[in-house]
Formats: sequence, structure tokens, C-alpha cells
Amino acid sequence: MKQLQDKISSEGRVLSEDVLKVDSFLNHQVDPRLMQAIGKEFARRFENDGITKILTIESSGIAPSVMAGLTMGVPVIFARKRASLTLTEGLISAEVKSFTKQTVNTISVSGDYVTAEDTLLIIDDFLANGQAALGLLDIARHSGASVAGVGIVIEKGFQQGGILLRDQGIRVESLAIIDSLADGKVSFREEAEVR
Amino acid sequence: MKQLQDKISSEGRVLSEDVLKVDSFLNHQVDPRLMQAIGKEFARRFENDGITKILTIESSGIAPSVMAGLTMGVPVIFARKRASLTLTEGLISAEVKSFTKQTVNTISVSGDYVTAEDTLLIIDDFLANGQAALGLLDIARHSGASVAGVGIVIEKGFQQGGILLRDQGIRVESLAIIDSLADGKVSFREEAEVR
Repeated sequence: MKQLQDKISSEGRVLSEDVLKVDSFLNHQVDPRLMQAIGKEFARRFENDGITKILTIESSGIAPSVMAGLTMGVPVIFARKRASLTLTEGLISAEVKSFTKQTVNTISVSGDYVTAEDTLLIIDDFLANGQAALGLLDIARHSGASVAGVGIVIEKGFQQGGILLRDQGIRVESLAIIDSLADGKVSFREEAEVR
Repeated sequence: MKQLQDKISSEGRVLSEDVLKVDSFLNHQVDPRLMQAIGKEFARRFENDGITKILTIESSGIAPSVMAGLTMGVPVIFARKRASLTLTEGLISAEVKSFTKQTVNTISVSGDYVTAEDTLLIIDDFLANGQAALGLLDIARHSGASVAGVGIVIEKGFQQGGILLRDQGIRVESLAIIDSLADGKVSFREEAEVR
């Protein structure tokens, strides 16, 4: 998605060979018009898949998901990382390892909102090691819902998440795939190279 | 806002005299079309206030804020409750007490994105004791930004947050104000009664 690549090129900051900072438009400050364009692109890519609900994870997955949900006319549900006072019964949970923070988080959704009748589109802002996506897929599996695919805003193509998911036969649609952050420079994978 | 009151009446669940569960459309599952209507209503109420940026807090403030930002054509920044690996320098922080969870959280935004040149609209999903809004106001104060007002999706009018903010001269625009949850019933304040 050219508009997204251009934004990453102009505003993304390469902090190391692993870390790209995009907090000026995606995961701290949010550019609503870009999110709308991203939402429309996810909607276009999954328009024939009978999606009934979008599943994402707080917090940075929410903005692109809500814009996709608006275009597709379906609700969004975001998995929570912490327990909530008013949300305790009938939870479906999964564990998510964070390699960067060296922690294991439990993420949860209410079983009221993800059921065996649903066909889910899973959306997240980043795909790196794939742990968050695997956690969301776990939740889908426990609920009995079908998963049409995973929509990712930025995939770090040099990490294992994309391979991990695609090797399981999961359809992954990443709007930008970064092949390298070497030498402080963002190198994108060409769309045609995405298998 | 009638559409919001109707949604609360039909889908909100009163768990106690203090607790209203609206996780079917606002803070767990999200209704994107309702969020769009809410965003437009915030934009209408603050259209003459020269807003340059919306400030909110993860996670439930993000969806209504991004929709308001889309209508108003301004960026959204969400305060984070946890430290982030890629977000460590130049933070502006404030403390937020949670009465329900009996904890104190530090919330932070990057000083790159909230500056003395900004006129902020602060948005949150709920106003109860007002601690989150006060924390966001604290951050605005530290940054030197002006605050045009606070936009709230659901105000619990029987708790102290609304009085606390309005007594400081802060403009609070709540799209629904609940006067009571007694007897398992949601009682709304009429718009004309809002001072």
C-alpha cells in the first residue's frame, strides 16, 4: 500500500536493525485519515470472505480495526491485556509471549462476542514474532469461530511471524512488509514478492 | 445524544448501583457506526474551538477519538498506561488513581506530540470520579497546551468527576449523562438540565 509505505519512509524512525518507531501516526499519535485508508484497504482485500467480526488487541490495533469495521459494516472486538472489573465471566483467554519485554501476558475476550457462528478477520498493527497473532488465533480456535485471515499494517519480514503464520496455511495480508532496517534505512518488499 | 441513549438503554447492563456494562458497543466490542456518530457529534460541539489535536487514553478512548479526529481533520494522541520499549525519551507523565482497582497508574505521552502550540480536545469513554480526565489535564498543563474542553461518551452524573471538572471552569461535553443506576434501571439526565 503506497500511501502507507510513503508515510513509513517519511516519518518512521529506525532505532536499530530490529526497531522501527512509527509513533507519529500509528501506535501513539494516530493519523485518522491514514487509518481510514488502511481500513478501506483491509475491507477491499477481505470483501468476499463473509467476515462477521474483526478481532484485534488493545491498544494499537484498535484504530485500524475500527476503520475497517466501519467500511465492512461489522463490529470490532479488542482482546484485553488486563483483567477488567466488569468483565470477568465467560472469558476466552490465551497467552502471548513478548520477546522485547521478556514477559508473558494473558489476553482475553468475552465469549459473548466471539462465537462459533463468526467468521473473523484478525487485525493488528505489527507482525514481528507473531506471538500476538498466534494468541488471537488461539482465542478464535477456543471460540469455534472461523478465521478468514490476518490483516497486518506493518510486517517485519525479517522476523519469523509471517513465516510462522503462512506455514500454518493462514492467509496473511500485510499492507507494508519491511525486509530490512539495516544501515538505518527501511527497505520494503515489493508487493509482487509477497507469497 | 439520542442514538447513544437508545443504545445504552437497549444494550447496557446495570451490574450494580455504580456499574454499567457497555462492553457490547463501547469498551470491549465496539460498534464502528456508533463511534462515527459519536465522533461527528464531538466535532460539531467543538467545531469553533480551533482544536489542533485530540488527547485520549488507551484503550477505550481510542475508537471515539479516532472518529472525532477523522471528522475534524486533526491527529489523535493516546496516553499510554505502560512504558513502551520504543517510547522512553521526553515523556510527559501524570498519575491516575483508580478507585475501582485501588491502584495508581502513571500515564504518559511523548512531548514530541503535545506542545504549547496545541489546542487540545480531551476525549474519554467514561467520566466517573474524573481521575483519568484530571491526569490528561495534568499532561496538557505540563506541555503548555491549551485545552478547549473535555468530551465524554458516558458521564456517571451521580459520581464526582463532572462536578470536579466543571468547578475548575473546564468545559465538559458529555453525550449521555446518567443520573442513577438504582433498581437496575438507567436514568438519563435531560439535555436541558446539563449546566
